[in-house]
Amino acid sequence: MSVFTPVGFDQLSGWLQNYSIGSLVGLAGIAAGIENTNYFVTTSHGRYVLTLFEKLTRADLPFYMHLMAHLSRHGIPCPSPIADRDNEYLGTLNGKPAAIVTRLPGASAVAVSAEECAAVGEMMAAMHVAGLSYGRRLENTRGQRWWRETAPRVAPFLGSEDHELLREELRFQALYHLADLPRGVIHADLFRDNVLFDDADDGRRIGGVIDFYFACNDALLFDVAVAANDWCITAAGELDAVRTQALLRAYHAVRPLTPLERGAWPVTLRGASLRFWLSRLQDHHMPRPGQLTHAKDPDAFRDILKLRVAAASHQPWL
Amino acid sequence: MSVFTPVGFDQLSGWLQNYSIGSLVGLAGIAAGIENTNYFVTTSHGRYVLTLFEKLTRADLPFYMHLMAHLSRHGIPCPSPIADRDNEYLGTLNGKPAAIVTRLPGASAVAVSAEECAAVGEMMAAMHVAGLSYGRRLENTRGQRWWRETAPRVAPFLGSEDHELLREELRFQALYHLADLPRGVIHADLFRDNVLFDDADDGRRIGGVIDFYFACNDALLFDVAVAANDWCITAAGELDAVRTQALLRAYHAVRPLTPLERGAWPVTLRGASLRFWLSRLQDHHMPRPGQLTHAKDPDAFRDILKLRVAAASHQPWL
Repeated sequence: MSVFTPVGFDQLSGWLQNYSIGSLVGLAGIAAGIENTNYFVTTSHGRYVLTLFEKLTRADLPFYMHLMAHLSRHGIPCPSPIADRDNEYLGTLNGKPAAIVTRLPGASAVAVSAEECAAVGEMMAAMHVAGLSYGRRLENTRGQRWWRETAPRVAPFLGSEDHELLREELRFQALYHLADLPRGVIHADLFRDNVLFDDADDGRRIGGVIDFYFACNDALLFDVAVAANDWCITAAGELDAVRTQALLRAYHAVRPLTPLERGAWPVTLRGASLRFWLSRLQDHHMPRPGQLTHAKDPDAFRDILKLRVAAASHQPWL
Repeated sequence: MSVFTPVGFDQLSGWLQNYSIGSLVGLAGIAAGIENTNYFVTTSHGRYVLTLFEKLTRADLPFYMHLMAHLSRHGIPCPSPIADRDNEYLGTLNGKPAAIVTRLPGASAVAVSAEECAAVGEMMAAMHVAGLSYGRRLENTRGQRWWRETAPRVAPFLGSEDHELLREELRFQALYHLADLPRGVIHADLFRDNVLFDDADDGRRIGGVIDFYFACNDALLFDVAVAANDWCITAAGELDAVRTQALLRAYHAVRPLTPLERGAWPVTLRGASLRFWLSRLQDHHMPRPGQLTHAKDPDAFRDILKLRVAAASHQPWL
């Protein structure tokens, strides 16, 4: 479970008097998530999510809060932070920075078809375009520099074959200057569990894009590659051509990919695989104190990386 | 009907490329409303309302647009304007200022019980509190000054008894300095048709407060009086004690009314009656060129005013 800091009904009821969202009706801890304390909150006005930030600091948070507010007001269905009576998004609860955001309708897709991949591609492109007018900046804390710093720390835990794969991939990635690609605000973690699909009266659509706490400024194509590596893969980790094309075409229809991006697609897919292999290796072999034990298997992304390396010369494309 | 300026599917489809709300799916004119052209718009992202402003000018509109955005981000369920790719709420369509806002769920209440009146009282108080941190200002264009200017224009259309009632009420209102009451941003037109009730899974609640185009800075109590004169009345126009108390108590629980406001309640109820009597007289006797013919009956508010004058010494109260 992911309630690190318990919040009581009466306590929250009092705290909500800083806000204009009505009186507290219900409160329930959320099991998912390994970084923050999250509660579903129901008030007389509607449904919200309360987050107490366990690691992110008051200095980190404005980038994320204002990004969600910015994307929301551009029509991207992401959590919209609620301002308090002092007009601030961030409050303090139990000594932790805390925020209330809107709760979005829908649930993560279990089985993913080309239709969902197209919806994700379209939404990601819309998010990238809307993000162009966002004024704050935050570098990717899991970017290339972090890859180079993290590799030597996890290398001792690897067998010789994996060690060699890691070394070779770092060398390969260093040959490319992805900084030349179109850049902007990216979600950087748009896996299936961070998109909610809602079956509304008038059709199935994305009800929410959630969990913006890896969002940053980076190559827009990196975001697409992270998503493709999760939304478009077969059980074996290979890219399914139909779903990959559905995602890319829908993206391209909203924000046309440049020739440079087309050329960089295979490299970027490898980079996106490397990033998650590294973070999972770190979480697995070097858990932080208090970290929950359900760290994900690093091998899945090692295998995806290997497949992307092998397929680098013939990626399914637009 | 209220489509003064037709908008075609292909035209809107192109125009929406200025926004990040997906591709156009459906478009339907809205019959209600007598001031602007409104369409329901469905896109691949969700449901919206498109408004082409027929009379309000580009100089008037930022107060309303930013007010809705401000209240939305404070958790008030009001239309939330969508920013375009240039980060602007206001665009131009067919030569008219135009905006896209979120479409809210629910429908106006047909029969109104104490429960709905309490919900409206609570929501209005939350809106008033959230409005305190709103930075823009706009005086009430239908305030006391407008009363004094409008009365001589409509007086020639009145019989002697009504003429006398109008003259006496203006004289009476002039004795009071309602500027001393707590002031802030008010909706100023919160009739039943401007509140949508939504029957959600977890209960009936206000899904939307709409039509902010009379919003302004004025005495907060004036907003309450306008609402009470519509939500809490019997068929004869008298205030129903149960519903009036429900509205006022719910309001008071969120923003406690001051002793000055308690004292000013009977005067304010009369002022709120006068304001709508005057505007309906004007719409009825002096229709503007092109105005639609379904102007509302002025006599209903004359009768309400008479009742408030008669009841002034014993208003149901907290």
